[in-house]
Order: sequence, then structure tokens, then C-alpha cells
Amino acid sequence: MPAPLRHKVLLDEDEMPTRWYNILHDLPTPPPPPLHPGTGQPVGPEDLAALFPMDLIAQEVASEQYVDIPEEVQDVYRLWRPSPLFRAHRLEQALGTPARIYYKYEGVSPAGSHKPNTAVPQAYYNARAGIRKLTTETGAGQWGTALAFACAQFDLECEVWQVRASYDAKPYRKIMMETFGATVHPSPSDLTEAGRTMLASDPGSPGSLGLAISEAVEVAAQDATVNYALGSVLNHVLLHQTIIGEEALLQLAKVGESADLIVGCTGGGSNFGGLTFPFLREKLAAGGAGPVIRAVEPASCPSLTQGTYAYDFGDVAGLTPLLKMHTLGHDFIPDPIHAGGLRYHGMSPLISHLYEEGLVEAEARTQRDCFAAGVLFARTEGIVPAPEPTHALAAAVDEAIRCVDTGEEKVILTALCGHGHLDLPAYDAYLRGDLVDHTWEDSELQEAVAAALTRLPAIPG
Amino acid sequence: MPAPLRHKVLLDEDEMPTRWYNILHDLPTPPPPPLHPGTGQPVGPEDLAALFPMDLIAQEVASEQYVDIPEEVQDVYRLWRPSPLFRAHRLEQALGTPARIYYKYEGVSPAGSHKPNTAVPQAYYNARAGIRKLTTETGAGQWGTALAFACAQFDLECEVWQVRASYDAKPYRKIMMETFGATVHPSPSDLTEAGRTMLASDPGSPGSLGLAISEAVEVAAQDATVNYALGSVLNHVLLHQTIIGEEALLQLAKVGESADLIVGCTGGGSNFGGLTFPFLREKLAAGGAGPVIRAVEPASCPSLTQGTYAYDFGDVAGLTPLLKMHTLGHDFIPDPIHAGGLRYHGMSPLISHLYEEGLVEAEARTQRDCFAAGVLFARTEGIVPAPEPTHALAAAVDEAIRCVDTGEEKVILTALCGHGHLDLPAYDAYLRGDLVDHTWEDSELQEAVAAALTRLPAIPG
Repeated sequence: MPAPLRHKVLLDEDEMPTRWYNILHDLPTPPPPPLHPGTGQPVGPEDLAALFPMDLIAQEVASEQYVDIPEEVQDVYRLWRPSPLFRAHRLEQALGTPARIYYKYEGVSPAGSHKPNTAVPQAYYNARAGIRKLTTETGAGQWGTALAFACAQFDLECEVWQVRASYDAKPYRKIMMETFGATVHPSPSDLTEAGRTMLASDPGSPGSLGLAISEAVEVAAQDATVNYALGSVLNHVLLHQTIIGEEALLQLAKVGESADLIVGCTGGGSNFGGLTFPFLREKLAAGGAGPVIRAVEPASCPSLTQGTYAYDFGDVAGLTPLLKMHTLGHDFIPDPIHAGGLRYHGMSPLISHLYEEGLVEAEARTQRDCFAAGVLFARTEGIVPAPEPTHALAAAVDEAIRCVDTGEEKVILTALCGHGHLDLPAYDAYLRGDLVDHTWEDSELQEAVAAALTRLPAIPG
Repeated sequence: MPAPLRHKVLLDEDEMPTRWYNILHDLPTPPPPPLHPGTGQPVGPEDLAALFPMDLIAQEVASEQYVDIPEEVQDVYRLWRPSPLFRAHRLEQALGTPARIYYKYEGVSPAGSHKPNTAVPQAYYNARAGIRKLTTETGAGQWGTALAFACAQFDLECEVWQVRASYDAKPYRKIMMETFGATVHPSPSDLTEAGRTMLASDPGSPGSLGLAISEAVEVAAQDATVNYALGSVLNHVLLHQTIIGEEALLQLAKVGESADLIVGCTGGGSNFGGLTFPFLREKLAAGGAGPVIRAVEPASCPSLTQGTYAYDFGDVAGLTPLLKMHTLGHDFIPDPIHAGGLRYHGMSPLISHLYEEGLVEAEARTQRDCFAAGVLFARTEGIVPAPEPTHALAAAVDEAIRCVDTGEEKVILTALCGHGHLDLPAYDAYLRGDLVDHTWEDSELQEAVAAALTRLPAIPG
């Protein structure tokens, strides 16, 4: 009788990494700094102090290679971490591939995604700084849920502006945030100047992530006991997510494997950075030998593959610092695809810089292909993936199918950054054939991006 | 610095139990047999052969103490098993209790509950018997989801009749079944005689679990290549669920603990039996020394605490054998409480027998108390529980609070049989104060049960 197939590679709690990895320490060249939109000069800590506690501001520009994870944060992490690494035997069998597919599964977290990895330390550092309340925005709802849970751990209030279209379409996400104790408003709301301005011009506005950011930032900036929290894009967010990749390195080593290809989906970049940065450290240390590392983005919001590398705002209203990043223009409104977590006009400055340096690849995929991979994955591996990671799954499946022809026993690692339990209407639309794909070949998309890029901010000075 | 708290007790895949435990072997007295409703005589294998494969019929009356789990079933189990045992440190801290609370979490499964533990072997044995399709009913939707997943593993078709009220109120459950490849009909449907009869008399009927069973059984009985699968109540179902308790025994031993109190919710009894039977084996072997074992049922459907121990049908239409069980009457329609999985008029004959023998206790709880415990649990432990296990959580929390006064360091083990991601509207109703509690003191409930009990079937012969 053959030995049983091993599906999961587990780490015990005492094997959980106790440090985050700071890739800034190891980059061949540093990424361009954020600029103050009024002066055109690099922002300093004082420019960020109205929104963030000093510990997080320091992490944003940290130069040491590792940052210790506070004991209090580790204690919360251990509710679900280390997360499992799975070998996708049943998917491989369905494909008949000689490739070996591994997926690092973050859906075991309280929010059902990787987002609590940064929500918990952000809540911790804010609580330690004496902050009473955190505000934030949420689109798909994963980030708002994560922050609601994290705030409950450290006795912080949590106020979330959820993009109106998502607030209406995803009532389950709102209820989950409320169950964790958060207050949730649809955005635009009449609680902020930014919201009221939008409602005055368009009472039926469906909102956007950029506008919801403006509302949450506006409220936080007005009260010294209230801070703002962001779920992706920034350096300290990606830093916190590196625990994913650190665990995956340990888990692959446990089964004597090393990855040939790593694929992750990218919206703001935190899931992708979290998984891949520790592997990039090893690759840089090995003089470039190591896995191919590939970001997969939606074809209808292709910031890496079609955007411009330029200074732009992180939000619609222009309240944030200017970030050097791949962008489609800060007022570009992506298609309402179901992978709401990937509908962001920009890309993390760190990921953008790595892409410019040739250290990561990128490709764009249409959502029907992604859902097809998601359904195949659900029926073979038993997990219904969130729409976001189906982008990476589609890439992994295609690579595994190529290996059927070439016979390569390629080791493919993918980030399964969340489950799709609260995204099931998207599967319903796919199964009924109601999904429409928009690709870069659509002239409307090209024209919308071209127009948004004409409105990139000028750099003063 | 104190040692970090350990939240999870994990087993490796090669520590997964490879046998189910058959409590029939160890009972002081055997439970009364199922009877044929036409003859009043014990049913034989031939009476069940139109619905179930011989392997499962044999397991229904097996006399050996253990049944080997087939390799093919083990391979699917290992997608999520062994499931984690958690120590609820953060809940304990919130309560300030000296009690130690453990929960065995089955929400990591593909369906998000314990149901795949029996769906997978049922699909396997049916596939091995050459069956082409399985039919079943589902109320809350957990069972239908589990069977849909299991059928996908063994290339079986799966056809589910979902109670109309649940079909309309829980669209996410239906989509999840369809994502796993099943076909889902609302019940009553016009596809069966039972459904058409109901629709003729009440075109707007919301359906019931008993009627959906009648529809699924009717379709299976008409085609030799189609069988029926049941998700609770029967001996072979509870047998398959004992892997939960076998794992929990190993996990508690790993941390040097033994339970003083075990609480589990009961609908048909499979979650409760699955966790507790292996502990009952140890208790019987120790001459009765061991944990108190307590079933917790909804106050509005109190089959153990208020029902009659009598022969009754498992379904509304009277298509099943007569089962000796605690029952509220086979045509009793429970309140539409949110714990849909506990809305069943009867109780597993095995659990009913154990209750009569004094080997398990029972209590009934109202849903607002249960949701209060569920919200506290979500905010401390990070998992939003399904409405069903909040009944057991409420009992565990009460016991832990008693320990605050007595100072007892009691070890409480509870079955967290599923997550509540697809039940979030129930939390919304609770948080908004919209839930109504019905207790045994309500005369309407007592009258409805008394009336249903006058319609218990007569035993022929």
C-alpha cells in the first residue's frame, strides 16, 4: 500500500516566527520616498503624526533587517497562526500534472484572510499610544472585518466607512464587522465634508475606495484620540504581512522543497509582498538564484502591467502624501469586478519599485478564467477561494498544465489569501454565466486610464 | 517573562485516528431496534436496500467495537483533519474564570461544520456500490453543502431539496452547494408526488425538513442507481462522527488534561454523539468515573427535555422506518429559530437511549442567551460560531461563571461544530434586538407539542 498523501504542512505555535522581515534593508537601491503634496519634499514623521502612532511611522522607514513582533501581538496571532501550508494533491490529480502545487492558506484567520496580520499590530501600537478609536475604509470588507476584530482585542473603538456599493451588495461583511463590535457607515456618508460634498453632487453615489479613505482620514485628523489605519500599500503594512512568507519558508523546508515559481494576487500589494519578500531575501542573498516571483492582477485594473510609474495620491480627494507607484490615476474608477480587494488604482511603492528593478514579474487576468480556476479548486481541494486569490490560482493552474506537456516537476507556491464564504454571490454570477470580462484591449478601459493619467498631480518645487 | 499561552492543540496527519468507534458494542443494554411501519417487526437489510448501500446498512447494526476508515475516506479527511482543539484563553480571561475551556473546532472543514465527516464516507460507500447519484434534504444548509462536496470527491451527482424558507433566506448556502457541483431545488418542489401534494394544498408553503426528506427519499426509491443520504440521527452517521471525539481524547492527553464537563448542542444528535461517544467509552470502562456529559437543545424544540420516548417516523410523510426516540411528534413544526440545524422533531435513537439510561444529561436554552455567548466568543476568540453551537457555548460560559464563585478549576470541553459565516443575518437580528424567544412556558408551544404527540403512529401487530 502506498504511503498516505500528506495534504498539510503544519507548524506548531512555538515554531511561529517572532520577527517581521524588512525588505528595505536588503534592496539593491532604495525606493523613492513619499513626498509632501504641498512642498514636494519627502514627508517627515510629523507629517504623519495626525494619523499614525510613532511606532508605525518608525516602521514605515525602518532600516534594520528584522522587527520583533510584540508578545501581545504574538498572543493574538496564535489564535490562528502559524497558518497551514497545503500541498494541492487533489488539484494536481485533476490536472494530471507532474507539477507540485503548494498553497499557503490565510483563510483560517478571524477575518478569513491575511488582513489581521497587520490589523492586530496596528491596533496594538495605537492602543499603546493611548489612542481611543481607529477609523478606516473598506471595499470588499476584508480589511474592515480584520480591523474590527483587532480593535476588539485591544479595547479600541472601530469606525468603518464601507464603499456604498459594497455596503449594499455585501451585507454579510457589515454584519461580521458589527459582530466584532465595529460601527459601519456607508460611504459617501453625511458624517464628513468629503462625504457631504459627494452626496450634494451625486445623492445616489455608489462611492469608491478612494472616497472612503478620504472620509476615514478626515475624521481621524480632527481628533487627537482618533487615528487612521490602512490595510495595504504602505511599507509597515507589508512588513507585518511577511510572517506569511517566513512561515512558508519553514514549511517548505520541512518537506524538503524549494519553490520554482511563486504567484500571488495584487491589489495594494500586501498579500503578495507578505508571501514573497522573505523568498526575495533568500534570492538576493543567493545572487539572484531562486524562484520566479509573479504578481497577478485583474485585467480591468492593471496597475503594474499597464499603469504609469509616477508620483500619485493614494486617495481620490488628495489627502495622502504623494507615493511613487504604478498607478492608473488616483481618480480612475475600476470596473465593479467581484475581486473587490484588487480594485485599487495604485500599487504599493515597494512592489512597484521591485517591479521596476526586475525582481518581480506581473501579468493580468480576466475574471471568468479566475473563477473557473476557483471552482476547480473548490471541487478538488474543498476550499471556496475568495475572488482575489483566484487570480493567482488561475496562473498556477496554467503553469501546472504547461508542465503536463513539458513533464517538468515544477514546484509552484501560491498565496491563498482568503476564503470566499462572504463572496458567494460572485460565484453565483459566474455559474450563471453573468460575468462580463473587460480586458486591456477594450478601448473604453484604455481611454479611462489615459484620461485619469492626465490628472496626475504636479510635484511642487 | 511568562511562557506564551498555547491556544491550539494540533495533531499531525499521521496521528489522525484510522477507526471509527461503535458505541453499540459497549452499551449496558441495547437500544430498541427500528420497526417496519407496516408490520411492526424490526427492519431488515432488505427494507433499507432501496435507499442505502449494504456497507452503510451493515454499519447501522455493526456489533464490533471499531470500524476501519477506508484509505480513500482518510485521504479526503486529511484535507482538513485532524481538526484543531483550542484552549479558549481569551474567553476565560474575559470571564475571569479559573475554569479551563477547550473547544473542538469543526469549522475548518469544506462545508464549515462537522457534516463532511459522514458525508465523505457515505459518498464513498455509495460510489463503491455503483450508485450514480445521491439525493438528500437540507434545512440550515450545512448537510447539503457537505454532501455536495463529498459527491464531488467520488464523481457522484448530488441533488438536494432545500427547505423553501431556508432556500429563500440563505442564498449563500445554495450557491456553495452549486459551487461544489450539486443541483438544488426548493422544497416543496413539483418534482415529487410529496411536493406536488403539498403545493396543491398550499402553493406558498415554506416547507419543512420532514417534507424535504420525503421528497429526497421518494426520488431515490424510484431509481436503482440513485440512493439517499441522511446527515444525522442514524447509527452509521453518529459512528462516522466519532472521529471528532477520538481526536479530542488524543489532544487533551497531549496537554495532560481530562474533561470534567462536556457540552454539545443537539439537533439530530450527530455532533454531540461524535464528540462524546469516545469519552463515554472511557467513562463506562472506568465504571462511570469521568466527565459529566450534557446535551444542549433549543428551548423551542426540546425533544430530549420535553419530548416523549416513543416510536415515531423520521419524516412528515411517514416514509421512514419507525425509530424509538425522544420526539415532539413527526408533524411538529418547530419555530423558525436561526439554529436551523437543531430544528428537528426527534433525536437520534442512540442519544435518546443514552439519555434514558442516565448516561447523558440535557438542558434547553433560548436563542438570545445563545447569541450573547456567540458574540462574546467571536470578540474574544475570533471565530463567529454557527447558531447551533452557541447553545453549547452558552452552557459552557454559564459553567465557567459558576467557577468564578466556587474557584473550581473545572475543565470544560465543548463542540464548536461550525462557523457562522453563512448565518450572519441571524447575528444581525440578534444585534438589532429583533430575536424573539419561545420557551417551554409558552402555552402555544406546549399545546403544539401535545397535539403532535396525539398523532404518533400506532405500532402494528
